[in-house]
Amino acid sequence: MDQPDPLKPGATIGILGGGQLGRMLAIAAARLGYRGHIFSPDPKSPAFDLAAAHTVAEFEDTEALSAFAETVDVITFEFENVDVGALDRIAAQTPVHPPPSAVAIAQDRLVEKTFIRDAGAQTAPFTGVGSAEDIAQSLGEVGGTGILKTRRFGYDGKGQARVRSADETEAAWNTIGGQPAILEGMVPFDFEISVVIARGQTGTVKAYTSVRNEHRDSILHKTIAPADLGQSLEDKAQSVATKLIEDLNYVGVLGVEMFVVGDEILVNEIAPRVHNSGHWTLDGAATDQFEQHIRAIAGLPLGDPSMIVARAEMTNLIGVDDVSRWLSHMASRIYLYGKTEASPGRKMGHVTTVNR
Amino acid sequence: MDQPDPLKPGATIGILGGGQLGRMLAIAAARLGYRGHIFSPDPKSPAFDLAAAHTVAEFEDTEALSAFAETVDVITFEFENVDVGALDRIAAQTPVHPPPSAVAIAQDRLVEKTFIRDAGAQTAPFTGVGSAEDIAQSLGEVGGTGILKTRRFGYDGKGQARVRSADETEAAWNTIGGQPAILEGMVPFDFEISVVIARGQTGTVKAYTSVRNEHRDSILHKTIAPADLGQSLEDKAQSVATKLIEDLNYVGVLGVEMFVVGDEILVNEIAPRVHNSGHWTLDGAATDQFEQHIRAIAGLPLGDPSMIVARAEMTNLIGVDDVSRWLSHMASRIYLYGKTEASPGRKMGHVTTVNR
Repeated sequence: MDQPDPLKPGATIGILGGGQLGRMLAIAAARLGYRGHIFSPDPKSPAFDLAAAHTVAEFEDTEALSAFAETVDVITFEFENVDVGALDRIAAQTPVHPPPSAVAIAQDRLVEKTFIRDAGAQTAPFTGVGSAEDIAQSLGEVGGTGILKTRRFGYDGKGQARVRSADETEAAWNTIGGQPAILEGMVPFDFEISVVIARGQTGTVKAYTSVRNEHRDSILHKTIAPADLGQSLEDKAQSVATKLIEDLNYVGVLGVEMFVVGDEILVNEIAPRVHNSGHWTLDGAATDQFEQHIRAIAGLPLGDPSMIVARAEMTNLIGVDDVSRWLSHMASRIYLYGKTEASPGRKMGHVTTVNR
Repeated sequence: MDQPDPLKPGATIGILGGGQLGRMLAIAAARLGYRGHIFSPDPKSPAFDLAAAHTVAEFEDTEALSAFAETVDVITFEFENVDVGALDRIAAQTPVHPPPSAVAIAQDRLVEKTFIRDAGAQTAPFTGVGSAEDIAQSLGEVGGTGILKTRRFGYDGKGQARVRSADETEAAWNTIGGQPAILEGMVPFDFEISVVIARGQTGTVKAYTSVRNEHRDSILHKTIAPADLGQSLEDKAQSVATKLIEDLNYVGVLGVEMFVVGDEILVNEIAPRVHNSGHWTLDGAATDQFEQHIRAIAGLPLGDPSMIVARAEMTNLIGVDDVSRWLSHMASRIYLYGKTEASPGRKMGHVTTVNR
């Protein structure tokens, strides 16, 4: 592909979603000379404070969405649960990146896992199920025990149930509300990693080094960069992520979550947006993931994803947390999201600590 | 002094002035969890796009200023030509940092130079003049040739005239509009440096390394960090800046512009705000000058001003400039200010290039 005409300074980048990712995207857009326009149903959206314009409306409000699309030069989003039909409609008015097709894949765990397998990547064993009987019949296929997950709109451990034996199928089916589901085998993985990767409008792909992720209560707690996998595993992780972003014909930043199992890489899921495990890049990479995403969707050349520190550790500030200790910690940089109400499990900010 | 209670996340920082400095201050405030409220007469202020709230009103509009002061928790400013009487009035409502007294000093070149001399620092020879005759009589005092500058509201070479002999006094006096003025001796300086320095509410002082500044057409063109002065000169520069910020009983970031003449440091002027020659800190220091200023005025502990790269070079993008070459330059980071209209001499953005 030829390099398209990039968006000119002063152009407006529309962002669906008003949380911290939208906020950090809006700052990156401003730094490149663009104006941000945030679309969010929440009148207290943290991203509104950092954008030139905002629209408060429901994502189902097709009229508001269309008016929004008219006033912006390109549209992106900070979360993957946006309605694909709506994305397709506004894409007829204004370019939408990443592609709605990637969102459709990421929204359905069965479609997602199938796509990953079809791309030649490894996954945990999985099968689609539509009833408690299905689960009982499929349990053997996935190794005797499994995790049942709703196909759609699961997030951070919600809509999931373990199935350790055929006795538990009925309870598990009820736990997830009896919805179309995927049954995945339990994988005894060593640790979780992710690769945050970007693809520009000309097809150029640039990836950050793989990072190691630690969760608490099913929420990302800490990311450590680099993952220090050794060359062979790192190459595998990078080539899997590259294959996936290319197969998606993607433009923008993509998060690819993976498990390391011995010397194998299993892909767990893809997130068609900037990713929490990429926040370390704000202080640890030459070009951070937010700028990289804006560059990609604006048709600018991608920036340099090289790590510029020896090691970076990103810690999420979850719920009510005392931030004052971080303010006095000289090797740390704090990012608060401007959320006025803390609640358990809510991401209030993050801190990066680097070794140079 | 005891550490005061710091501003809590969610508090609002009021900023007088809506240019690029206000914009970068607003981003830094947001990152620390604060809301920004910009006060500016220009409805197209670049800072509005990055702040939660803004007021469009003249600085002379006492009613609007008072209403603004009511809604914010602390007030700062991005430019030094704000009316000191107005600052004093709003300071009765809401804390104002840096102190209006420092602004009063910086606004009058004669008062400023006298303050600097009284602090024990060296300056070029200077004397106050009020007529063409004064100039003719004072020329000998400052070394036979001099620069005539209006005492108030000079900026980037405006309101100045050279006086090379007694014959030129009348013309020079007319050039500057016949206003109260200061006549300064011409100093054959080797190069210009500046020290950007911060003082917190408890009196803690932290300074960035001195940097070397190059001008074009009387506008800052390039800053190089560090200035590489050698230990003795660097110590002099640092101790002069420290003495000045302490004598001002200052809170916030202060720019101190100096000349190096042989092994002496002459102070040229002080800027009671974040400073263009401190923009390199966004990519070259552990804590950038904008965050440092917000920390100081919010009562937070000051951050670490240490340099984190071997060398940083900041180049201003002035007037109409092609930014595309910078976007492909991998060691550079570009900052555009969102100004929609370029004009000769207008600062449109800056670029930092670092060596690690």
